[in-house]
Amino acid sequence: MTALTSQVREPPMRGKLESLQALVDADMRLVNQLIVERLDSPIRLIPELAGHLIAAGGKRVRPMLTLITAQLCGYYGKRHLSLAAAVEFIHSATLLHDDVVDQSDLRRGLATANAIWGNKTSVLVGDFLFARAFQLMVEDGSLDVLSILANASAVIAEGEVAQLMTANDANTTEDAYIRVVTAKTATLFAAAAQIGAVVAERPGSEVEALRFYGESLGIAFQLVDDVLDYNAREVVLGKSVGDDFRDGKVTLPIVLAFGRGTEEERRFWRRTLENSEQDTEDLARAIELLERHGALTDSLVRAARYGDLAARALTVFPASPAKQAMLDLVDFCIERAY
Amino acid sequence: MTALTSQVREPPMRGKLESLQALVDADMRLVNQLIVERLDSPIRLIPELAGHLIAAGGKRVRPMLTLITAQLCGYYGKRHLSLAAAVEFIHSATLLHDDVVDQSDLRRGLATANAIWGNKTSVLVGDFLFARAFQLMVEDGSLDVLSILANASAVIAEGEVAQLMTANDANTTEDAYIRVVTAKTATLFAAAAQIGAVVAERPGSEVEALRFYGESLGIAFQLVDDVLDYNAREVVLGKSVGDDFRDGKVTLPIVLAFGRGTEEERRFWRRTLENSEQDTEDLARAIELLERHGALTDSLVRAARYGDLAARALTVFPASPAKQAMLDLVDFCIERAY
Repeated sequence: MTALTSQVREPPMRGKLESLQALVDADMRLVNQLIVERLDSPIRLIPELAGHLIAAGGKRVRPMLTLITAQLCGYYGKRHLSLAAAVEFIHSATLLHDDVVDQSDLRRGLATANAIWGNKTSVLVGDFLFARAFQLMVEDGSLDVLSILANASAVIAEGEVAQLMTANDANTTEDAYIRVVTAKTATLFAAAAQIGAVVAERPGSEVEALRFYGESLGIAFQLVDDVLDYNAREVVLGKSVGDDFRDGKVTLPIVLAFGRGTEEERRFWRRTLENSEQDTEDLARAIELLERHGALTDSLVRAARYGDLAARALTVFPASPAKQAMLDLVDFCIERAY
Repeated sequence: MTALTSQVREPPMRGKLESLQALVDADMRLVNQLIVERLDSPIRLIPELAGHLIAAGGKRVRPMLTLITAQLCGYYGKRHLSLAAAVEFIHSATLLHDDVVDQSDLRRGLATANAIWGNKTSVLVGDFLFARAFQLMVEDGSLDVLSILANASAVIAEGEVAQLMTANDANTTEDAYIRVVTAKTATLFAAAAQIGAVVAERPGSEVEALRFYGESLGIAFQLVDDVLDYNAREVVLGKSVGDDFRDGKVTLPIVLAFGRGTEEERRFWRRTLENSEQDTEDLARAIELLERHGALTDSLVRAARYGDLAARALTVFPASPAKQAMLDLVDFCIERAY
């Protein structure tokens, strides 16, 4: 475990998210109900697998964004519920497709759904969820929402392919990495946040402010995730330390450490990440190098900067409990690293 | 090669499809242009891989259905062009996702795009094409079309999962098999054919007639494909004999031969298809059994019956070159087996 792990401040973290969770609680129950209903299929494997994924599905940050932005914009209808479910379906589809592995990856760890049901099933159930998301949007009937999420889906796929192409390239630049993160993670945060303003029929400036809030928050969220991979407490996060390292993923901490490293250190990164030759000692060495070069701390500094951008995007909205919850969400995303 | 192979009648086959191709030729050029334009992406691997697939992409039967039904319905605008491209994108996405294999499949043959670029790339480029299809539909702006293709996409995914679950089950019933074929193949034929009537704003009875035409044609098409897998001439069709057999796919000819077989023959089907234990002699033995029980011929009889249903669905339309071409297309789909 790393030095950062000892700085955990559990109560403030949980408190931050709880204000948001309380505000969207009633809506989220309805969204969860809708998700279960719309997962149904005569092909039993579909609700079984997708239910397994979505039940285990963490904090539901993305649909929560749709719910809280609808509230922020004074929306009183029901449309945000099915659209929040659509957002979660798209997110779940990308998770399932992210699980797909190639033969060359099999020596590394297998992701959960895939380990149980296999590549092909993960792909097809992901396709089903993606189609269901569009069915929900069609029933809602807004071409604006359909446009936002169809565009987001294309950008996410582009980002995933771009990441695949640079996955094991230790020479990745910080800019290139941020572009990938923006496409593959922040785009869906942005879309989810926009939808609240769209259903509330707010002016374009507010739609854009929420898009920017979601995008900045999404980047901050992913950068913190990247750092956590090198100091997560397994029990709390349900993921183990070093997954990204073992998968050869070149994330921001690596980009920074590689750029600041000696030639010998770069050889280490190339061997472990590009050639996937790893010994049991290598993760500890990686963490040591990341800390020596301040790569984890500086990744968090950048995350905090994107968090500030997200918070500042909300200045166009008057004070309200929803706005405060959205500011708290930014803090939560940053602070869960400590 | 089997007995059926010697019955090939090249000129009538080609002639049948040419009447249709001539009628949609100008439109199809525009569709191809649109496809190339909308495949573009700053992520070069996407147009590279998708272009490889779509350029090699055979006869374009599905987008052709959208073009010819638009013509049948007297439509004179441009909307059918981008929607035909959307249909081809969805078809290509399902092909790419169909290429995905599990480790257990690796000893069998690998599909083309997958063999070159791997599972993960096939999945992500497929996702991109799927998203692009929805972007094209959103730009078109018809919620009716969006509904048809979102529903079709969900049904296709369900059909693929259903097939996966029964893939190596020699006990599959004819009904179960037809249900899978209807979902995974015929649904997109049906959707493609419907769209022509929808853009032409024809009454519901004509939309339904074309849906039924497409669905019946799609089932006939798939059943003939299943038969061709046991007697295809490799050069003409670009696929080799016995692919389905080697993949352990239980198609209609197998269903019929299994039902009519002796206990010893059933042990043969179970060994080769369920347990994937195959010797070099086994394909010849499989074909011999299929012929002994009339399983290939009877599959074609069933295909012809669905072809008749397709043709009969067109009775609500007055005679026209487009209608004749659609009748010829039915004949082509059936006759390419001979």
